[in-house]
Amino acid sequence: MSSKRLDGRTPDALRPIQFTRHWLPEVPGSVLAEFGGTRVLCTAIVENTVPHFLQNTGEGWVTAEYDMIPASTGTRHQRRRGSRPDGRAVEIQRLVGRALRCIVNRKAIPGRTVWVDCDVLAADGGTRTTAINGAYVALHDAFTALKEDGSIKQWPLTESLQAVSVGIVEDTTMADLNYYEDSSAEVDMNLVMTGSGRLIEINGGAERSSFSLEQLNALLDVGQSALVQIAAAQEAALQP
Amino acid sequence: MSSKRLDGRTPDALRPIQFTRHWLPEVPGSVLAEFGGTRVLCTAIVENTVPHFLQNTGEGWVTAEYDMIPASTGTRHQRRRGSRPDGRAVEIQRLVGRALRCIVNRKAIPGRTVWVDCDVLAADGGTRTTAINGAYVALHDAFTALKEDGSIKQWPLTESLQAVSVGIVEDTTMADLNYYEDSSAEVDMNLVMTGSGRLIEINGGAERSSFSLEQLNALLDVGQSALVQIAAAQEAALQP
Amino acid sequence: MSSKRLDGRTPDALRPIQFTRHWLPEVPGSVLAEFGGTRVLCTAIVENTVPHFLQNTGEGWVTAEYDMIPASTGTRHQRRRGSRPDGRAVEIQRLVGRALRCIVNRKAIPGRTVWVDCDVLAADGGTRTTAINGAYVALHDAFTALKEDGSIKQWPLTESLQAVSVGIVEDTTMADLNYYEDSSAEVDMNLVMTGSGRLIEINGGAERSSFSLEQLNALLDVGQSALVQIAAAQEAALQP
Amino acid sequence: MSSKRLDGRTPDALRPIQFTRHWLPEVPGSVLAEFGGTRVLCTAIVENTVPHFLQNTGEGWVTAEYDMIPASTGTRHQRRRGSRPDGRAVEIQRLVGRALRCIVNRKAIPGRTVWVDCDVLAADGGTRTTAINGAYVALHDAFTALKEDGSIKQWPLTESLQAVSVGIVEDTTMADLNYYEDSSAEVDMNLVMTGSGRLIEINGGAERSSFSLEQLNALLDVGQSALVQIAAAQEAALQP
Amino acid sequence: MSSKRLDGRTPDALRPIQFTRHWLPEVPGSVLAEFGGTRVLCTAIVENTVPHFLQNTGEGWVTAEYDMIPASTGTRHQRRRGSRPDGRAVEIQRLVGRALRCIVNRKAIPGRTVWVDCDVLAADGGTRTTAINGAYVALHDAFTALKEDGSIKQWPLTESLQAVSVGIVEDTTMADLNYYEDSSAEVDMNLVMTGSGRLIEINGGAERSSFSLEQLNALLDVGQSALVQIAAAQEAALQP
Amino acid sequence: MSSKRLDGRTPDALRPIQFTRHWLPEVPGSVLAEFGGTRVLCTAIVENTVPHFLQNTGEGWVTAEYDMIPASTGTRHQRRRGSRPDGRAVEIQRLVGRALRCIVNRKAIPGRTVWVDCDVLAADGGTRTTAINGAYVALHDAFTALKEDGSIKQWPLTESLQAVSVGIVEDTTMADLNYYEDSSAEVDMNLVMTGSGRLIEINGGAERSSFSLEQLNALLDVGQSALVQIAAAQEAALQP
Repeated sequence: MSSKRLDGRTPDALRPIQFTRHWLPEVPGSVLAEFGGTRVLCTAIVENTVPHFLQNTGEGWVTAEYDMIPASTGTRHQRRRGSRPDGRAVEIQRLVGRALRCIVNRKAIPGRTVWVDCDVLAADGGTRTTAINGAYVALHDAFTALKEDGSIKQWPLTESLQAVSVGIVEDTTMADLNYYEDSSAEVDMNLVMTGSGRLIEINGGAERSSFSLEQLNALLDVGQSALVQIAAAQEAALQP
Repeated sequence: MSSKRLDGRTPDALRPIQFTRHWLPEVPGSVLAEFGGTRVLCTAIVENTVPHFLQNTGEGWVTAEYDMIPASTGTRHQRRRGSRPDGRAVEIQRLVGRALRCIVNRKAIPGRTVWVDCDVLAADGGTRTTAINGAYVALHDAFTALKEDGSIKQWPLTESLQAVSVGIVEDTTMADLNYYEDSSAEVDMNLVMTGSGRLIEINGGAERSSFSLEQLNALLDVGQSALVQIAAAQEAALQP
Repeated sequence: MSSKRLDGRTPDALRPIQFTRHWLPEVPGSVLAEFGGTRVLCTAIVENTVPHFLQNTGEGWVTAEYDMIPASTGTRHQRRRGSRPDGRAVEIQRLVGRALRCIVNRKAIPGRTVWVDCDVLAADGGTRTTAINGAYVALHDAFTALKEDGSIKQWPLTESLQAVSVGIVEDTTMADLNYYEDSSAEVDMNLVMTGSGRLIEINGGAERSSFSLEQLNALLDVGQSALVQIAAAQEAALQP
Repeated sequence: MSSKRLDGRTPDALRPIQFTRHWLPEVPGSVLAEFGGTRVLCTAIVENTVPHFLQNTGEGWVTAEYDMIPASTGTRHQRRRGSRPDGRAVEIQRLVGRALRCIVNRKAIPGRTVWVDCDVLAADGGTRTTAINGAYVALHDAFTALKEDGSIKQWPLTESLQAVSVGIVEDTTMADLNYYEDSSAEVDMNLVMTGSGRLIEINGGAERSSFSLEQLNALLDVGQSALVQIAAAQEAALQP
Repeated sequence: MSSKRLDGRTPDALRPIQFTRHWLPEVPGSVLAEFGGTRVLCTAIVENTVPHFLQNTGEGWVTAEYDMIPASTGTRHQRRRGSRPDGRAVEIQRLVGRALRCIVNRKAIPGRTVWVDCDVLAADGGTRTTAINGAYVALHDAFTALKEDGSIKQWPLTESLQAVSVGIVEDTTMADLNYYEDSSAEVDMNLVMTGSGRLIEINGGAERSSFSLEQLNALLDVGQSALVQIAAAQEAALQP
Repeated sequence: MSSKRLDGRTPDALRPIQFTRHWLPEVPGSVLAEFGGTRVLCTAIVENTVPHFLQNTGEGWVTAEYDMIPASTGTRHQRRRGSRPDGRAVEIQRLVGRALRCIVNRKAIPGRTVWVDCDVLAADGGTRTTAINGAYVALHDAFTALKEDGSIKQWPLTESLQAVSVGIVEDTTMADLNYYEDSSAEVDMNLVMTGSGRLIEINGGAERSSFSLEQLNALLDVGQSALVQIAAAQEAALQP
């Protein structure tokens, strides 16, 4: 595909990626993850308790929360403090938590819960995938700190984790949609995969009409190649 | 695959399907949808208002809510009345609403909102797919009533709509999982497609580990053949 | 009184009554109770805990919840999920719980709580009395299951329980009001009595003006004769 | 009956009654109503709006709220601020509102809503009946102020209003139960009647077992004679 | 300063003060505190528990709640029952609690929590300072009761406690502002001090513009002299 | 005073100050304000509406919200989403809003509301004063953008605004307390003043005991000299 996007990218190109580790000096696992204009602060904090259903099982837990600051969208969106459920946030944080648990050997963190918080500071599309990519780096740092102070013996991560959004916009299949592209997409899909190329989550669909199985395959192709680049960026960021 | 499931089904077999139309005499679009032991009361009620963002646009709206009665799961689950968001219910009702909107020409119902309620009376797995399948029949009946009393001129449905769960349980790819199978599935996925075989939603993933792209394709195959059978059951039910 | 009602009933006649037991296959005490167009799903589920104030007292507890599905009234009513108390539902479920506790020997179910849920599926007047009548049958079935599996030794029910609405509509005293009659009633009253003819609850009054003690006596007469018929219908339903 | 109660009263005797009008200098309809140790501050405040369903009907509205301060019960009870519905308070305020509306000609207060607030300052039994008795006096004062400043032309009250609790305690039928009697009552009932001896509400029942129709009649007798005395006390208080 | 205020007071004069002790017969520490038209019922109730963070520390706790009845402001204000935080009430009750804890030796009440409730019955300005002044008297009475029944050995109060509002209204520095003055004040400040003239809290500021350090000093002078008078009124009220 | 603090500062020294403007590229008024380890993202977003009470008055409005991300405190604190009011946050955001309104000529922004959001990303003491200092810079930038695009004609800011915390820690009067100092302070006070040295807010007091008027004066002295330094830092940051 030779057509250009509004920001000059080719359909399969990603936005500039940056992972700034230790963004909060007091929190070993704290990463400012940026994909173009999208900026998510991902933190992983370990507590010495587990949920009720895991007590005395020898397993730990990983859970996630996702929120957006009011100014993140440019025009202010209402702060969520009241009693109305924010369906979208709940759906996203369930996804982040489940994806992270798939790459963690929870027997390696007995009696511990890792709280992963993803606070969106700037939202220009792909906040949930940016959250997952940054959360992986933050989790890596949190576990490194646990390992270094002798709190755990076994390395809990079994694989690396990547996520990307793919979509069909004006009949073009593309990766890493920004806000403008996301709003006008006919099909919008998130892929979460491991570093070894196995699927953890495929989640998405048509916003207004429907799409063919051929289009699904094209989306999977674009996504896979994007995930490889993201894995490389994470690995580079995690170099000491 | 020749292996049998606990309830005697072959891996690709569906549970007995039943759509009882007009279950609430006062509500034209009211269907008791049953897939085996799962029983969902789906209703479609039309109101003569539209949400704020659609006022004076000439378009109508379709929205959905999903809830479970406390006894539906056999052991009582807490009634949701308080202020705690039930993430799962919110996620499901967003899916149901979006799927229905994909097959409705909203210009054919100007100034109207269709409220689709899916109340789970008995939950034995696949409540969200049963809800979608029943909601389609209820919506069809609600639109028929509107058409017959002259309230609308154009038929609003552009296609039929089906949904099914597929999954991998003990390495076997199977369709229409019951509760027991769903709880022990390694991979769990919901497919929503139109009668013409186009995708509306693909949503799911690994619960504990990950899965390969080959496995994804096997799941899609089993799902597609199941959806054809469901479409036939809906069509039969909708015969006058 | 020879005057006929809109649905052809004489003033003291009840609507057709039906109790469908074991409506939810997984729940021993689950009854679909119908009085004409009113349909309430009543379930009784037993848990092995008691509220704090009964711990170590050798007594069990019976409590009730009441809710309506949105479509139950024909025109959709708002689902109660938020934090606003639904005064009417709270008032009804307190009545149902108190009435049931009056016929239960709570020493016969030590350490157990019975949760009775009354979910109104179709509302055509008399939902609270239908709920009580169905709840009695569901409770009977739940206790039978406990007795049969040896969980309890003593039969906990001391009496049967019936409820009926009576009212004055256009100066006529009548029993078992449907929705239309209930909305236009000058006086509206619910009677809850035991099978042996003793009162448990008398609850009602004038909606707009006031009524005489003679009218109160006429209402009690009509109600008592209705309750006898309801007791017979329950007994018939409970035959094995 | 010659038996004495703990506080020396005969079974049909009321506690000392006091209505202190204009208790809040700024609020014309503000009455501190006392029945023995029970103290309820009843206020009636008029606003120049009506609920949506009464707009442009030429009718006004009367509504009530009921609450208890935390210290009112001697041992502190939790302040109700959160989102949990306080079923009892909701039930009571619905009763107070409905009773008041039965004696108000709402056509005489077009376009106005009267908010009646009953705040229990000390609770020694009979708070809801004390609230109704005091609310009548407060409403009378609020309407007098409206009449005097020319805001309304027609006197809105059609009758006076009284309420009393009656009950069976250790087999004795008695009136105006204090907290101790109320807690140990076998049967507990509230009667709301008009000054001309017509019923507005009869509401109550057995707490633990059941009672006969003869007992119901005895309760009605004791109650009627109590209501006559309360009406006299209100009339005396309303003398200028 | 010789200028008079609307109610005839000189700038530094207080309104008539009254502390009616034992206002609720069942509650030893219950005081109706009045500063002119402002009337706050202050109660102190002792419970035999402490918050989690004080368990097994040998210390007790003092906490406060503040609320207003709807009619207290003359025109009705909405009852706070819902889930929206009432920022002003929360701010005030935190202040009351913190001030009281400053004069209580919490080691003298091990294992106990004192709940101080300040319910505003009539609000004519200075409700929070009236609440603090009355709460001190109620607390004194509650501790006297504890001492007399032998529950505590050591007297827990280390000092007396007073509070007053001061402000600048039309360029005049004045004490104990009523509602009208408070609404039109350019600067509004609350002082909380101990009987020995030490500060506990200084809290306030400009509503619309700003003020000089000289003005701050003038406010402190007026306030100190007012607090001496309030201390005298408390002492007089506490005479047996 | 020659004694050093734990981080090496003299008692009257401030922590390193930084204001990073335009931190969110899409939001003209967005400032990351840092005082040592405390980091607050302050944004000012303008909407073309005003609250109900200002409609048709020719005046605009300025309001503020304050929140902390869960990881901001190093150990995770609970995200505020539920219905429990967070008293501290409400108190702070009321202070921020009131202070900003004191330096804004609201007639210069008719028909507009400025939403100032202060989201604490890292909390090491002084979050509310850092929020105010950063909010001033963000507000300045937001108004500059309005002025430049011709939306407003008159410059709305009448003065600059500064805030600082002062306190007594181990008998030493000091400025700009960090978290450790704040937790162990005997007296803790926040000063908000304008660039011309006039007070807007003085707010604070003793946490456990009380303090003298001499100590109050010492706190004011230290605070004033700190505020001058902060004003200089703001001015430097606002240079183009």
